Amino acid sequence: MAKRSERINKVRDELLTAQTQLVREKSFAVAIIVTGVPTAGRSEVVNKLLEWLDPKHVSVHALDRLPQTGDGKPIMQRYWLTLPARGEIAIYFTGWYEEVLWPAMHEAKKAARHEARAIERITQLEAMLVSDRVRVVKLDMRVDREVQKQRIDELLAEKATRWRVTDEDRWLAKHFDVVQEVSDRIIAATNSPDAPWHVVHGDDKNSRLEKAGGHLLKCLSAGFKHSAVPANSAPWQAETNASTVPFVTRPPEGLDDDAYDRELESLQGRLALLSRKRSFKKRSVVLAFEGMDAAGKGGTIRRLAAALDARQYTVVPISAPTPEELARPYLWRFWRRLPERGDFAIFDRSWYGRVLVERVRDLAAKPDWQRAYDEINEFELQLAEAGMIVHKFWLAVGKDEQLKRFKDREEDALKRYKVDREDWANRRHYDAYQAAASEMIERTSTPHAPWTIVEADDKKYARLKVLRTVCDSIETAIKKSS
Amino acid sequence: MAKRSERINKVRDELLTAQTQLVREKSFAVAIIVTGVPTAGRSEVVNKLLEWLDPKHVSVHALDRLPQTGDGKPIMQRYWLTLPARGEIAIYFTGWYEEVLWPAMHEAKKAARHEARAIERITQLEAMLVSDRVRVVKLDMRVDREVQKQRIDELLAEKATRWRVTDEDRWLAKHFDVVQEVSDRIIAATNSPDAPWHVVHGDDKNSRLEKAGGHLLKCLSAGFKHSAVPANSAPWQAETNASTVPFVTRPPEGLDDDAYDRELESLQGRLALLSRKRSFKKRSVVLAFEGMDAAGKGGTIRRLAAALDARQYTVVPISAPTPEELARPYLWRFWRRLPERGDFAIFDRSWYGRVLVERVRDLAAKPDWQRAYDEINEFELQLAEAGMIVHKFWLAVGKDEQLKRFKDREEDALKRYKVDREDWANRRHYDAYQAAASEMIERTSTPHAPWTIVEADDKKYARLKVLRTVCDSIETAIKKSS
Repeated sequence: MAKRSERINKVRDELLTAQTQLVREKSFAVAIIVTGVPTAGRSEVVNKLLEWLDPKHVSVHALDRLPQTGDGKPIMQRYWLTLPARGEIAIYFTGWYEEVLWPAMHEAKKAARHEARAIERITQLEAMLVSDRVRVVKLDMRVDREVQKQRIDELLAEKATRWRVTDEDRWLAKHFDVVQEVSDRIIAATNSPDAPWHVVHGDDKNSRLEKAGGHLLKCLSAGFKHSAVPANSAPWQAETNASTVPFVTRPPEGLDDDAYDRELESLQGRLALLSRKRSFKKRSVVLAFEGMDAAGKGGTIRRLAAALDARQYTVVPISAPTPEELARPYLWRFWRRLPERGDFAIFDRSWYGRVLVERVRDLAAKPDWQRAYDEINEFELQLAEAGMIVHKFWLAVGKDEQLKRFKDREEDALKRYKVDREDWANRRHYDAYQAAASEMIERTSTPHAPWTIVEADDKKYARLKVLRTVCDSIETAIKKSS
Repeated sequence: MAKRSERINKVRDELLTAQTQLVREKSFAVAIIVTGVPTAGRSEVVNKLLEWLDPKHVSVHALDRLPQTGDGKPIMQRYWLTLPARGEIAIYFTGWYEEVLWPAMHEAKKAARHEARAIERITQLEAMLVSDRVRVVKLDMRVDREVQKQRIDELLAEKATRWRVTDEDRWLAKHFDVVQEVSDRIIAATNSPDAPWHVVHGDDKNSRLEKAGGHLLKCLSAGFKHSAVPANSAPWQAETNASTVPFVTRPPEGLDDDAYDRELESLQGRLALLSRKRSFKKRSVVLAFEGMDAAGKGGTIRRLAAALDARQYTVVPISAPTPEELARPYLWRFWRRLPERGDFAIFDRSWYGRVLVERVRDLAAKPDWQRAYDEINEFELQLAEAGMIVHKFWLAVGKDEQLKRFKDREEDALKRYKVDREDWANRRHYDAYQAAASEMIERTSTPHAPWTIVEADDKKYARLKVLRTVCDSIETAIKKSS
């Protein structure tokens, strides 16, 4: 027994040392998932970890179950919002496994057809976390049926301890076999070398503590080893795909001012009425605007917003990430800005920055922006699954027209701030942007989140086309759901 | 006419210059409130400002009306969450005046008795914003009854523009007199030199634009002038009030281990059952723990948390503020961590840092920590008004006992990280802390948010006393509301 307590002290000591290093280096973050049956010691292990570690850099998350009916929010959003920054450790009671374990245990048949997709969401999330320097440790705390029964009986026998057994505990204990079966199945389906499961047997208090601590320690050591290996740092050369067909930037024909005013007013009216419809109140809209500098994103967004009630939309301008954002997986900052039901979130530049500016200007490593296509498709799929209407616009401005607009702006004292050195630098990469945009649109245009290319050399034409497309998109979505 | 457009261009130019300076210096933030009747040009003015300014540093907030029934959240929380950081400009459509204008217009009699308190909340908020370097500009956009009627009729006459008139607009136009009366009354009650109202007459498009821009410009100039004056920077000397009666730190009698275990278990059971009660689901609990280093806050909080479902509580450790937090009024970071209905938020150190460590260690200017007593009382009152159960604990540890614990910790390799140079430095100020804590408790113990002083030289006694007090507090609150 003395030996075990020495070993535990050693684990404890090493854990604190490792955490201190982690806090100092901020080289990665850690997400710990703890699942398990009643009396297997989940809370106890978590409490001990909190006692051992410096709690200022540890957060514990135990989220309520989502309402079965859905609330218009993507299922994984609440986990995204709680992701630890690098240097931090987050402990999740059940965490994202809540969405698959609980339904599987309770309504085996009904849940089965959702299970495959739920598991896909989880494996995709964990793969992304690992790529974005969040280490994932998963502990499943178990105990024998007999031991569990005995412990629960003991707790129930004493008035002073009876409160420890909740209704949920009783249910889980009663359905021991189902619970075990489901856990085994989910664990098998979500075990991966990068985010492995560890089954911890909780028959003995000290033994489970030693094991759980040991797994966390191994995860931390692996993290330090991994982050010490320099990332592939050979600067990537922007590949201008010579065979890329340039976008059409000039619309077929012009529009006189009167016709434009009339058409704008009428499209704004159409959008306004759509946005006030009762059937729209259950949906929400996510619009992403991309395009080179001076393509006219701002002006287009303003014409769109003018049709909406100010309480109903947010324009989210995206520029260089803050330190807080840089310390987390790159999609984090977009997850935080999703619309409420009945609302619009309009992104002026978006999550596509990763495969545009970050790719072209060499701000992201090649493997990072390459995996972003799949990550973005998954992200948008999850938004669509939650009932969001997602549409993306590429405002295609020609090289000559862009130059003209830059010069006009520089001459206009009031717009001068709109052109800076960065813009001129970006312009020198026009062809690389063009190639990156082509590949982006090819790889991320999906039925549930389509791209529309807008011929933006003519600002008025561009504004009308965007407005019309947004209206069509909402109309189709509402019709389908009613 | 040419003259006016020149003047507008000048305002526009100067605004952008001023904003650029603001973004660079980050010396203050700006909150703009825009209220007004339909067709007076609210949206148009806001859109123009957005066009003129660099939109990356401007946010627009138009929040939905709160549900009349209340949702367990303090009314002002949503405004707090959107406060601009220094260097940023936030524009609010109606903003916090929503809570007083709308009820006053719609249910004059019923609302009257709430109005005084609503206005108090607003003036208190604005005073705090101004003190914490958020400049407040308030614009009320108006138009004559006849002009309004004519404009609405024109809009309704054309199919293409009819959508611009909402049901709310019709209502407001129909009740022109009431709307005017209420606006006058609220404006008179909330006008102050630091957060003045400006009535902008919107009969003419350009004139209202020029005026609104001019008011914002004046606000910015005043901000720069004000921030250029060095704050009273004479370092404040910790005044040790010799007449302060020291807290009792040692409880009347000890407790043997068995009795402690039994009592702990039973109190945890009581708390667990209380927290699972149906009548508790509508309430929430905010607990603040303060006390000198090594007073036993962490251990006490763990004993408390052990009684709760992990999904039901969050422990919020408060240490030095982040840059993001430092850029905003100091209560901002606490507003962000309030509990949901049915939940506990347990603060390990709290908003009282301002009148404890910041006061004693000279981290806040004297006027700043002095006004904090009132600000904190108002903050806690607003939590209580939303149905939150607020209780605060001062864990009083004696000077000798603290020294003993420091030494014990230094000898224990595993707890060594818990004592750092800061702690020893704080200890040298023991008497000043003692005096600051006395004043704090005297000035902020209120019926709706009481302080309990806990004799913490005996850890076990302290844990039991806290648990018992929390149980009593919840029980009383639930009884009252049922």
